[in-house]
Amino acid sequence: MGNKENKSTNVVWHSATVTRERREKLHGHKSAVLWFTGLSGAGKSTLAHVLEEQLHQRACSTYVFDGDNVRHGLCGDLSFSEQDRVENIRRIGEMAKLFCNAGILALTAFISPFRIDRKKVRDLVGDDFIEIFCDCSLDVCESRDVKGLYKKARKGEIPEFTGISSPYEAPENPEISLDTGTQPLEDCVQQIIDYLESREILPPQTS
Amino acid sequence: MGNKENKSTNVVWHSATVTRERREKLHGHKSAVLWFTGLSGAGKSTLAHVLEEQLHQRACSTYVFDGDNVRHGLCGDLSFSEQDRVENIRRIGEMAKLFCNAGILALTAFISPFRIDRKKVRDLVGDDFIEIFCDCSLDVCESRDVKGLYKKARKGEIPEFTGISSPYEAPENPEISLDTGTQPLEDCVQQIIDYLESREILPPQTS
Repeated sequence: MGNKENKSTNVVWHSATVTRERREKLHGHKSAVLWFTGLSGAGKSTLAHVLEEQLHQRACSTYVFDGDNVRHGLCGDLSFSEQDRVENIRRIGEMAKLFCNAGILALTAFISPFRIDRKKVRDLVGDDFIEIFCDCSLDVCESRDVKGLYKKARKGEIPEFTGISSPYEAPENPEISLDTGTQPLEDCVQQIIDYLESREILPPQTS
Repeated sequence: MGNKENKSTNVVWHSATVTRERREKLHGHKSAVLWFTGLSGAGKSTLAHVLEEQLHQRACSTYVFDGDNVRHGLCGDLSFSEQDRVENIRRIGEMAKLFCNAGILALTAFISPFRIDRKKVRDLVGDDFIEIFCDCSLDVCESRDVKGLYKKARKGEIPEFTGISSPYEAPENPEISLDTGTQPLEDCVQQIIDYLESREILPPQTS
């Protein structure tokens, strides 16, 4: 609009005025994408949820993406084929970016085993991308076998299962690396919070 | 996890504890999906951005989805074929639902011409879906022709252009109907705010 010949003078084009910076100010913290990666059973989702609880108690606006809220919804049309797995990670990256633009701390908890796919999300999100490697040995993950998936994979019932029949490519330079096989959960969470404070994404804790 | 035979005792399964209700309390308002629909040039995007500005000034957490932030990103793989248009609206609906769960007032500004597609989003989002019909005659929209699209469509350069070569199916029971061809912009915005207050999505204005 803004066209001088507009017949309808009550309509003037208005572009977005509420910027990311204004949202961050409203929320009292900066936004970012916290991208948890690691084997099934490495503790990504657990960590993300416990971290979210602490962030919420500090009055931060957060959201956790995991299989529960993405696989049946936004990515409900995707299979587990290689092509669709790539598209799955791409969409999650795009969505996390939008949440970040909305002033939210977006936490994603997906195996995301391939460097190239994580690299694409990093390139998309830019400096706000924080890769958190949940480093846990296959032995430990398999012994936990929370969902019984490793057992099935060993029987050959799940094709291309990360760690068993498909590779996991560990991050080379993650912003945060956690030894989730031995490090207590509380320490892991604190390490992330310390990092966020050091980057001034979170304001310093006052109380 | 929660498996008593867990070898790694430091890992206990933690599910999500930060609920939508807690996020809404933090943000000081309820969340919803405000779905603007209408012809190209009817004022959807303008209205959404002006409304967002007012909501932000009331300390509300908001986000506007429009072609600018969706078409090249999350839906960047989609064409304008009928099938892909349906998928486009589906994904926007799924995403808006996630924002709503995150305690955000999600505003979407897409023509979304077909009742069946809007119905699907309504069914997905439930009671939080607020359909806002930007009712403006084709004549007025075409005379505005903000982006020069109608001119192109009349020349046959844009196939299946809503209102010209493809139908627009007006909502039958929208929560809000605005006469965006004649009603001043400020009145339209106020009408939406009044509605949100009446539904107690927004707290009453105190100042």
